[in-house]
Amino acid sequence: MAASERQWVLMATGRSPTNIAVIKYWGKRDEALILPVNDSISVTLDPDHLSATTTVAVSPSFPSDRMWLNGKEISLSGGRFQSCLREIRKRACEFEDEKKGIKIKKEDWENLHVHIASYNNFPTAAGLASSAAGFACLVFTLGKVMNVKEDYGELSSIARQGSGSACRSLYGGFVKWCMGKKDDGSDSLAVQLADETHWNDLVIIIAVVSSKQKETSSTSGMRDTVETSPLLQYRAQTVVPSRVLKMEEAIKNRDFDSFAKLTCADSNQFHAVCLDTSPPIFYMNDTSHRIISLVEKWNHSQGTPQVAYTFDAGPNAVLIAPNRKTAALLLQKLLYYFPPQDKNLSSYLVGDKSILGDAGLHSIEDVDALPAPPEMKIPKQKFKGDVSYFICSRLGSGPKVVADENQALIDSVTGLPKGV
Amino acid sequence: MAASERQWVLMATGRSPTNIAVIKYWGKRDEALILPVNDSISVTLDPDHLSATTTVAVSPSFPSDRMWLNGKEISLSGGRFQSCLREIRKRACEFEDEKKGIKIKKEDWENLHVHIASYNNFPTAAGLASSAAGFACLVFTLGKVMNVKEDYGELSSIARQGSGSACRSLYGGFVKWCMGKKDDGSDSLAVQLADETHWNDLVIIIAVVSSKQKETSSTSGMRDTVETSPLLQYRAQTVVPSRVLKMEEAIKNRDFDSFAKLTCADSNQFHAVCLDTSPPIFYMNDTSHRIISLVEKWNHSQGTPQVAYTFDAGPNAVLIAPNRKTAALLLQKLLYYFPPQDKNLSSYLVGDKSILGDAGLHSIEDVDALPAPPEMKIPKQKFKGDVSYFICSRLGSGPKVVADENQALIDSVTGLPKGV
Repeated sequence: MAASERQWVLMATGRSPTNIAVIKYWGKRDEALILPVNDSISVTLDPDHLSATTTVAVSPSFPSDRMWLNGKEISLSGGRFQSCLREIRKRACEFEDEKKGIKIKKEDWENLHVHIASYNNFPTAAGLASSAAGFACLVFTLGKVMNVKEDYGELSSIARQGSGSACRSLYGGFVKWCMGKKDDGSDSLAVQLADETHWNDLVIIIAVVSSKQKETSSTSGMRDTVETSPLLQYRAQTVVPSRVLKMEEAIKNRDFDSFAKLTCADSNQFHAVCLDTSPPIFYMNDTSHRIISLVEKWNHSQGTPQVAYTFDAGPNAVLIAPNRKTAALLLQKLLYYFPPQDKNLSSYLVGDKSILGDAGLHSIEDVDALPAPPEMKIPKQKFKGDVSYFICSRLGSGPKVVADENQALIDSVTGLPKGV
Repeated sequence: MAASERQWVLMATGRSPTNIAVIKYWGKRDEALILPVNDSISVTLDPDHLSATTTVAVSPSFPSDRMWLNGKEISLSGGRFQSCLREIRKRACEFEDEKKGIKIKKEDWENLHVHIASYNNFPTAAGLASSAAGFACLVFTLGKVMNVKEDYGELSSIARQGSGSACRSLYGGFVKWCMGKKDDGSDSLAVQLADETHWNDLVIIIAVVSSKQKETSSTSGMRDTVETSPLLQYRAQTVVPSRVLKMEEAIKNRDFDSFAKLTCADSNQFHAVCLDTSPPIFYMNDTSHRIISLVEKWNHSQGTPQVAYTFDAGPNAVLIAPNRKTAALLLQKLLYYFPPQDKNLSSYLVGDKSILGDAGLHSIEDVDALPAPPEMKIPKQKFKGDVSYFICSRLGSGPKVVADENQALIDSVTGLPKGV
């Protein structure tokens, strides 16, 4: 390349949602390729509330690949990042922008370095599948910059090599990760079961639970489970396959009753195999148990599931209500038991705050005046401080390009993250 | 019978130990006969620390069967009491005491009523298998009064119909409850694997954990698990049979390493199938999890199990150490994290208090001065108040007759409980 060409910076920005599994992924049959022991199914959350935004910049002036996560530079040397970069580079295509004087031939991509800046619009530490949104966004945005022509299914298979559940964040709505059979993992990818408009009255409330315990990472946790739990293989080979079929039916028919029962049962079974691991893994704590108990008693009192719950590798509860009316009732019950520690109701429920109005909760006084849920017998104890905050969300769409250059995370002149 | 004969009261008093399963019983294949879905193995605890004492009195002057538990009259109308009474009466034999002028023919027993008084030397509410000790003692003592000639195996099969795990309290040391195959349950009974002298350096420390939650009864809990857990049958049919064989070997060879690994794994798997139940059952709480974590980290740091843990249908931890030296180290670690809420160390550790001396803990100041266990990384938080008290015990013997009439719980003149 000529010296005059060295100054250009080519950029793309993408935004990818996070997802919550309703049939859980736990256990790999291949650690390096991240191939799971069973299919899993997830719902994609609204990226307005929970998503990663990533800008990828390419320039002949960059001497090496670099990445910044939430403003802090992190190492790209890990195998997972390297897999994603390698697989996308392999599929990179010729690109030309005559106006900017950019012309990149297919073989040039091998020698062009990237700067990546990524940002989550929710706390990384909250244990809300930030790596799923992050790797999906990385692969999606790398693909845009490098003019990759492959479909989302193939991209999902690449994102999978960054973080298993990331493959499910390549689509909106309801997504299935097919475990695949091939040794090379090429058939282990995500497919969309239905988009977010298919069942758009579902409301999702997440209770971010305070935890003092250091949690077992899901990577080492699932490795321990595969190696030591006598129950995992039975779950993966016998229980999950029939649950996946039933869950697909439930989603197709918008059958909330069946959807809720399967979701709760599979969350509990995932935590059961964690407990069957040596040493045992505890992700749920007493607060998680209390939220389950609240939902189970409510569901039992009504004779039919009002709300589904599911817990990932942490104590946070993800609660799914069939509509806003039920979600508002759920919020009343949750806030009765878990009132905010300070007087600020507005920062205690983030995301779609309008649900507070539906629940008639306009001030902290309204929370204090909530009656005890009648289905809960004694003790009517409250647990102030046990939930950090709530997020109200809904189903959302898959990854999107952010066209507005003002929202890019990298300065197109310096090629470095903005504000760093 | 002549009027002059009406005044005699025939009595016997027995004492039976409680037991803690190391391979768990969870799930019945026959609810009425109490036939389990798998074999189980337990250790019998020293009756000096944890036992039931029962006096059974018989007199022609008693118009009906009556029972008092811990001084309070309770109903005998339940099917479980009726099964035990019926089965023992069926096997009652002729009895004669010329000196007291008592002569009971085999057929007389059908018309003679009993008064039963029973007492646990540990809190019933603590969830320490009080029903196991209680029903074993009831059957044992009824058998003595009624001059039953059957061996302990057959008595265990009757005690089983009162409370499943009670059958294992008919023997000391290490006991196996063979699930049996017959529909009538006659081969579902306990056998002794080894008596308490076989491996008498084991030390047992029980942490009685404070709990605010109402717990699911084990009867309804295991029924729910049988009906709803997809993992239970796999556990019962595939996992437990091989564990039982390995546990028998470990006990025979006094192989603590293997004994501890099997005990911990089976406790965790029992709680896993509880969690796999719909609605899920949680017996362990955050305190139970912290005790497991403490033991697991210690065991891991030493490269070999120092201590085994097992939890029944409640949050209490039963910890088994291979000898007094290790038990003293364990106690130091436990008291570091769970110091007593008041200054009274003596009431905070009951049973064999001499272990406190072994651990160098003569006063509350010694507890305050304990160093943090080095294997526990941050956080070095303490949890005062989360354990109610500790019990230090050892393996013990099976049921025994209490010959000293002063220890009888029933007044031989009135035929009523003493002090009532």
